[in-house]
Amino acid sequence: MNTITARAAVADHRTSLIRNCWYVAALASDVGRTLLARKILGINMVLYRTTDGQAVALHDRCVHRSFPLSRGRLDGDDLVCGYHSMQYRPDGTCSLIPTIANTPASVRLPTFALVERGPLLWVWPGDQNPADPADIPDLSWLDDAAWRNVGGAFHMRSNYVAMHENLLDQTHFTYLHAGSVGTPDYARAPLSMRVEGDQVWLRKELSASAAPGIYGIPMGLENKLVDRRSDAGFRSPACHIAHATITDLAPPPAARSAYHVNIVHLITPETQDSFHYWWFNSRDFALHDDAVSTFLRDASMQAYHEDVDALTWIHQRATDDALDFAEQSFGPDRPGLAMRRILHRLAEPAPA
Amino acid sequence: MNTITARAAVADHRTSLIRNCWYVAALASDVGRTLLARKILGINMVLYRTTDGQAVALHDRCVHRSFPLSRGRLDGDDLVCGYHSMQYRPDGTCSLIPTIANTPASVRLPTFALVERGPLLWVWPGDQNPADPADIPDLSWLDDAAWRNVGGAFHMRSNYVAMHENLLDQTHFTYLHAGSVGTPDYARAPLSMRVEGDQVWLRKELSASAAPGIYGIPMGLENKLVDRRSDAGFRSPACHIAHATITDLAPPPAARSAYHVNIVHLITPETQDSFHYWWFNSRDFALHDDAVSTFLRDASMQAYHEDVDALTWIHQRATDDALDFAEQSFGPDRPGLAMRRILHRLAEPAPA
Amino acid sequence: MNTITARAAVADHRTSLIRNCWYVAALASDVGRTLLARKILGINMVLYRTTDGQAVALHDRCVHRSFPLSRGRLDGDDLVCGYHSMQYRPDGTCSLIPTIANTPASVRLPTFALVERGPLLWVWPGDQNPADPADIPDLSWLDDAAWRNVGGAFHMRSNYVAMHENLLDQTHFTYLHAGSVGTPDYARAPLSMRVEGDQVWLRKELSASAAPGIYGIPMGLENKLVDRRSDAGFRSPACHIAHATITDLAPPPAARSAYHVNIVHLITPETQDSFHYWWFNSRDFALHDDAVSTFLRDASMQAYHEDVDALTWIHQRATDDALDFAEQSFGPDRPGLAMRRILHRLAEPAPA
Repeated sequence: MNTITARAAVADHRTSLIRNCWYVAALASDVGRTLLARKILGINMVLYRTTDGQAVALHDRCVHRSFPLSRGRLDGDDLVCGYHSMQYRPDGTCSLIPTIANTPASVRLPTFALVERGPLLWVWPGDQNPADPADIPDLSWLDDAAWRNVGGAFHMRSNYVAMHENLLDQTHFTYLHAGSVGTPDYARAPLSMRVEGDQVWLRKELSASAAPGIYGIPMGLENKLVDRRSDAGFRSPACHIAHATITDLAPPPAARSAYHVNIVHLITPETQDSFHYWWFNSRDFALHDDAVSTFLRDASMQAYHEDVDALTWIHQRATDDALDFAEQSFGPDRPGLAMRRILHRLAEPAPA
Repeated sequence: MNTITARAAVADHRTSLIRNCWYVAALASDVGRTLLARKILGINMVLYRTTDGQAVALHDRCVHRSFPLSRGRLDGDDLVCGYHSMQYRPDGTCSLIPTIANTPASVRLPTFALVERGPLLWVWPGDQNPADPADIPDLSWLDDAAWRNVGGAFHMRSNYVAMHENLLDQTHFTYLHAGSVGTPDYARAPLSMRVEGDQVWLRKELSASAAPGIYGIPMGLENKLVDRRSDAGFRSPACHIAHATITDLAPPPAARSAYHVNIVHLITPETQDSFHYWWFNSRDFALHDDAVSTFLRDASMQAYHEDVDALTWIHQRATDDALDFAEQSFGPDRPGLAMRRILHRLAEPAPA
Repeated sequence: MNTITARAAVADHRTSLIRNCWYVAALASDVGRTLLARKILGINMVLYRTTDGQAVALHDRCVHRSFPLSRGRLDGDDLVCGYHSMQYRPDGTCSLIPTIANTPASVRLPTFALVERGPLLWVWPGDQNPADPADIPDLSWLDDAAWRNVGGAFHMRSNYVAMHENLLDQTHFTYLHAGSVGTPDYARAPLSMRVEGDQVWLRKELSASAAPGIYGIPMGLENKLVDRRSDAGFRSPACHIAHATITDLAPPPAARSAYHVNIVHLITPETQDSFHYWWFNSRDFALHDDAVSTFLRDASMQAYHEDVDALTWIHQRATDDALDFAEQSFGPDRPGLAMRRILHRLAEPAPA
């Protein structure tokens, strides 16, 4: 297997961010009647809920003299600037300029389409016309009583492309996460890749394999033989999804049932050099067992902390080194390169 | 009243600083026989007083190897570099180069015209030929026994244009300073504007109005009816002046006398992103009442702290946001825009 | 003596760093079986010793995904990346890519010629073909039992050109180091300069001069009459050397013997704005007297701390001041200017 030369241009940490996409802006539970300032793709946004509970996102910069509206206050549903009390409705129209008699209809604060889906608020930071909620990834299990979630959040000092590549790169499990999720037979299992439009999906299947601790312990199957299927995919610039299916082989074939774990990685660039990151681990078993939740949260956080550290260091080296450098790729990097070609294409300005 | 489109270009935080102008370099009381380093319009200056008390300003960078002279010492009237003991006279000529026999007459440290006026030292950082002390704003009451001053100083992380606009913008009083100086009848009073050369002056007159606390309390006129006149002006890129005249209406017309308060704002850009700021509040009544001084200092500082916070946030938003932005202005912004047109014109390079 | 106008261009803090040169990378004692990260001329390097004690320097950036190899680990002689366990031999060839069956021979980590000489490890960060150990400055006394060394290290926030100029500029001793090494008769002694290829050497000779404390005290000759000779030279962009020879005049001429002190300054640019700095003070007398070592270390550190402070301030002024500035030079600056002309020439790209 030879060194792969990327035939088409691939995205890296210098590639423009992609505005026309749904990104998680915040957890639904983080947004309420207190103004929340959040920078997304370099754009300062202010998030809040109207009195009827609708979450909204507006530009966090008064059109008049740039005062951050998140430092102002709410008056009912309206956002009031702290400098001259200019007042904006949730749709960005201006409801009051106290210093003048009539408010010109032309005064509008930019707003951003914001859609609530279960525990998440999705924002579209790009051109508002094409914002179509149908493009939001379906993560309906996050809001389904048949599933139980644990999760966490990080603010990362790295570029989001490296994060996506890390998630598509299952080969590093064995090395970076040797102490947690990486097992030798998982590393050996053949991987199949499927590029569908702007998505990249991977599948691994293991038959009669010993269940690794991170699945075996919460399922009560530790070291027992299971069939294991893993589907993982670059779903969008904002989202990576993994589905694990574990089947206990102890019962007779007709009596077997599968355990499922869905893992979601939500990635929202803040700047070229930082991103917001949320993760969820969802299961359809042991729903009421808090000890299982604690175990899964702790085991996940251990692995993700290793990624945080690695990605921070990679970004540091990639952005502060004087020697000429030509990145080299190998066979297992194909999924990451496929994803990076997609990001490169999406980042290109549309033809005129 | 419609949105104003700035017809001529107006200055903002990206506009070049204006060197050919008198700026306050320091309080007279801050400069003595200890070397004071101060950066003004990006230029490092060193300030001190000669043995006969004359304050001087020189470039804080030895012509030889760039050592900051403020880290050296004084020898009588001369400034001695801490690296090789090169010695400069207050006029910038070189009095000694210890390592060579004869000092070339061509060796000169740049100096800056520095003029002491009452409590202030004014410096001209630009071309030294046109530096004419007649252009220094007349603030003679600051040094007049018939007046009593209180004052304070800030170092601001913002651009000086926004500060001048804040001072010319009396509409924000009601909102940002609702708790201190802003009162509804002051907001309602009509404002007249006068542009004279490179100055912009505003006038408001109120008849038989309740004295606001900040004037009424020190004058013993709280909530009594007074006539009130306010003149406020952009005097130069370095200076904003406000004059308040309050007339107690209780005595019969022939027996009435006016109370005066002069407020001076002294603004000296340090860099494009920071400025030095001093303020003085001067009164011609209650001269010997220290409680009145304390009241005025505390009430002023409360309002100015609100401005410091607002201007810092405005500069942060104006300099770190990725969304296209078109500033919008309204009727009450006319004085600020007039001032910003003047700053834009003054910042232009002189025609060749 | 007139102001010198630099006729040919001279290097300053903005001049490109010079890669084709041997620089000290680290003290030999600082490198072992623990990975050491060090940035040299903007290049991130990782240093370690193989199991047989050979010190090596490699690019501290995995060719695959830029992970800093210094955050990985050693496996015998090989460097193992912490991300995917790619493994490199000390010569930069790749011994293992665990995720693929066969390692392409084309995968190579850049390495840097590294030569151990006594207490020092010298690295060549430039084109590896011309790296010739014969060009390493001869500092053999540092590893000679007939000499005893004291030394120290600094990390400097300044540019290395100013440091070399400081070392060639003996006139500042009297002023910056008045409290330690500078004496009036040393300042008065005539200085001769010799430019040899890319080296600049200075000589001073004093006859029947009072020994200054820094020599007299450790030699037991304080204030006695000695002959004194000093040779100091810009040996390379990485190295300044000074030799002092002190002859006690008390014995009859035939019985006189000389005391020698060699001082070495090792200067390795880290970036345009910082450098690593090591110094050694070596003597051929009082070899077993620890009190003399302590005295020399303390006296040296006092002077060098003064230089650290001065050079940091000079760099601050040279890089953050808005006024036009034309550096002026005088007769005693000739050695420094000769050195800066050499650095300017060496920094030029080679003709095509």
